[in-house]
Amino acid sequence: MSKKLTKRADDYSKWYNELVVKADLAENSAVRGCMVIKPYGYAIWEKMQAELDRMFKETGHENAYFPLFVPKSLFEAEEKNAEGFAKECAVVTHYRLQNDPDRPGKLRVDPDAKLEEELVVRPTSEAIIWNTFKGWIQSYRNLPLLINQWANVVRWEMRTRLFLRTAEFLWQEGHTAHATETEAITEAKQMQEVYATFAENFMAMPVVKGAKSESERFAGAIETYTIEALMQDGKALQAGTSHFLGQNFAKAFDVKFTSKEGKQEYVWATSWGVSTRLIGGLIMTHSDDFGLVLPPKLAPIQVAIVPIYKNDEQLAAISEKVAVLVKGLRENGISVKFDNRDTYRPGAKFAEYELKGVPVRIAIGNRDLENNTVEVARRDTLTKETISQDEVVAFVQNLLEEIQEHLFTKAIDFRTAHTTHVSTFEEFKEAIENKGGFVSAHWDGTVETEDQIKELTKATIRCIPNDAKKEVGTCVFTGKPSLKRVLFAKAY
Amino acid sequence: MSKKLTKRADDYSKWYNELVVKADLAENSAVRGCMVIKPYGYAIWEKMQAELDRMFKETGHENAYFPLFVPKSLFEAEEKNAEGFAKECAVVTHYRLQNDPDRPGKLRVDPDAKLEEELVVRPTSEAIIWNTFKGWIQSYRNLPLLINQWANVVRWEMRTRLFLRTAEFLWQEGHTAHATETEAITEAKQMQEVYATFAENFMAMPVVKGAKSESERFAGAIETYTIEALMQDGKALQAGTSHFLGQNFAKAFDVKFTSKEGKQEYVWATSWGVSTRLIGGLIMTHSDDFGLVLPPKLAPIQVAIVPIYKNDEQLAAISEKVAVLVKGLRENGISVKFDNRDTYRPGAKFAEYELKGVPVRIAIGNRDLENNTVEVARRDTLTKETISQDEVVAFVQNLLEEIQEHLFTKAIDFRTAHTTHVSTFEEFKEAIENKGGFVSAHWDGTVETEDQIKELTKATIRCIPNDAKKEVGTCVFTGKPSLKRVLFAKAY
Repeated sequence: MSKKLTKRADDYSKWYNELVVKADLAENSAVRGCMVIKPYGYAIWEKMQAELDRMFKETGHENAYFPLFVPKSLFEAEEKNAEGFAKECAVVTHYRLQNDPDRPGKLRVDPDAKLEEELVVRPTSEAIIWNTFKGWIQSYRNLPLLINQWANVVRWEMRTRLFLRTAEFLWQEGHTAHATETEAITEAKQMQEVYATFAENFMAMPVVKGAKSESERFAGAIETYTIEALMQDGKALQAGTSHFLGQNFAKAFDVKFTSKEGKQEYVWATSWGVSTRLIGGLIMTHSDDFGLVLPPKLAPIQVAIVPIYKNDEQLAAISEKVAVLVKGLRENGISVKFDNRDTYRPGAKFAEYELKGVPVRIAIGNRDLENNTVEVARRDTLTKETISQDEVVAFVQNLLEEIQEHLFTKAIDFRTAHTTHVSTFEEFKEAIENKGGFVSAHWDGTVETEDQIKELTKATIRCIPNDAKKEVGTCVFTGKPSLKRVLFAKAY
Repeated sequence: MSKKLTKRADDYSKWYNELVVKADLAENSAVRGCMVIKPYGYAIWEKMQAELDRMFKETGHENAYFPLFVPKSLFEAEEKNAEGFAKECAVVTHYRLQNDPDRPGKLRVDPDAKLEEELVVRPTSEAIIWNTFKGWIQSYRNLPLLINQWANVVRWEMRTRLFLRTAEFLWQEGHTAHATETEAITEAKQMQEVYATFAENFMAMPVVKGAKSESERFAGAIETYTIEALMQDGKALQAGTSHFLGQNFAKAFDVKFTSKEGKQEYVWATSWGVSTRLIGGLIMTHSDDFGLVLPPKLAPIQVAIVPIYKNDEQLAAISEKVAVLVKGLRENGISVKFDNRDTYRPGAKFAEYELKGVPVRIAIGNRDLENNTVEVARRDTLTKETISQDEVVAFVQNLLEEIQEHLFTKAIDFRTAHTTHVSTFEEFKEAIENKGGFVSAHWDGTVETEDQIKELTKATIRCIPNDAKKEVGTCVFTGKPSLKRVLFAKAY
């Protein structure tokens, strides 16, 4: 199967699309722009969800569920937010179908079942949630209110790509309410930190933490904190955002609380989200021309064991040894699949696990039985070693940690090699056009300059890094003074 | 708070609605018929999901995700299914909003953004899933295909009630494809069994397993297997259904496979689902006039510990003892909340945990410190005992099991007392009207008789029980011959 995969160097975009489908992660559906997430892809999402959910709960958040639909009058209440999403809203206008009198057996929308007020399918839930929070918040005793929701959302994008940009996607959206501005900003930054920790420790995907420039901010936010990752083709991926919303939604929905001092004040808000887009980032960070490469911490199957046998007797003897291995591995929390299907040859199985990015493959044949060995292959380096059966469990346990570490280091190295500090616009263009990656440059802080740079190079400001040092310089485009460098890149 | 709760005997329906809101489980939203599931209610749903998901995976199913929208042409492909849901479909007709030229700051649907084909918001996913399965199934090697999806669905119901019947609800829907009829029927029955086990072992809610009569069958199914529970007001609740779909969907979507013998055959199908409706059933099975009563296995908080103190010094001394208790309980997998809020008095905390159905409450005061004791109260019987601190962990562990058991036994006893075997239609009406509950009666097997009985008594056939014994009798309504009794009841 993997032989047919397009090479990254030939057509990165085609490679990505093919890989997602061939590795059984997702496919396009009959609904424009909507994907079907297949079991193997969904299993990765479940692993992501489990870790993120644990991290959200550890930081004091609770899950809840709010309606899929937002009445238009609520949707438009926070004007900037509404304006930002209006152009990509799926709208429910009717609540019934009826038999089509002209086409027997077919249905049509019942014209008598028109809704008095149209319902927007949520592109994000600030409006419906803040309308609900109004009833939940009266006094400082109700604050902070720390809520998360796992849900599907719909944004009618014109150009879609599996996982990266789909009309419907799965995500989590945190929505919190606080008594003070400082507390809300601290929360928004904390969640950026949670996302960065998740991306780096579990996805092995290094990220730059920073703030968005005005034009890239979430519609309705005062400040958007982001984590930005770099893909192998030199394009950046916005992997998660956390917004400080100020009092914008509290004012739009009139959510006030009585402070300790007995005063009526508007509540301060944050919202933050990551989505199935992360799976796209995971794929593009690690995978190679042979297929998917998954970091062990998120791999649905960490170890695949393939028996190599000529007859039932050999398979029986191998299976006996494998049972011991499987038990030992599972006892150490390692997920193992013993692939004893007799409908596929070992070579086909090897190809399948390579394509699907299973971190470790163990092969065991007749000679291994004689020598008390197994062959251990790692997916990231495509190298093999022969190991004594007595040492397999400890060896694999270390190996999984090593692979996780190696993937992260490799990605960090790639990013370092693809981050260019420039001083002139010539250097800027050269880096963006020929090398790709992040370009660190001085910027005069204006929307106009950002727009012009974007028009000329297609690069946007990915973020103003949190750790940007104060450095006196001049804007790479206008020559006006600047106090720190920001990161530009072409982006997904 | 609980003082204000309406008594069940006075108005069961009002009691239910009040309880759901007061216990912080859910509330109505700004969207007609859609609910907000609050954190405490959602925590129960998460516990249900975790157990069900484990049971699905243990029986070989994998999770996947399919689009929220179903193009109208796919939706109408299986005619009976389409007909069954057409009257309650939310329909997306447009994909964009625009500024309303007549009302500055307001939005309207953009008339130029009309979809060529309307999209139905899924009321159930057979159509979109079978359209996808077509691409996944070629040969017998691809079968059985055992898929589950956790999702939201929308059915535009006219009369809604929190959890029991809402326009949007959360559920899981299993969709499986098989090579033979027998295998599909076995699967459908297996999932009925899984649901029954979950209902009885985790929800402590006894259920009758049976098959639906023709008129109560799922639209598009050949046979619907159901689990039916009895609520405290004598009405039945359909708690979960599993459908044998025959080849209806395979034919509608042209899904064929090559058999081992090399023949092209249509695939056999099942689908099965349970929803947030289960939370309604949980509430109505166990709760009382003081509030919620939760079975320990699904209680988000199993033990609440309330300190009773006069000053900080006492609280410190109590907290020290409690820390040991909490550690011991958690080590045994028991979820504990130590409620040391100083903004509420012990009495208010007692009332809150009573209302929220926390199975065990522990109070510890100054005298307990002197005597090395705690006071343990159980929610189901509202009884209290003083226990030595040294024995608390073992005591509570046993007590939780005892409460789980007791709730189930109590519910079984209630059902036994409210199941009436009748021989005449007079007895039938008497039982339905004055006593409520299940009425076991002979029925001639016709839709007409069922319809007439429904019209006269509002009772419907809940199921033809799996364990119904062959028993020669005559239909309670028409006097025609019958070979087994079926269960009638008024139902939610």
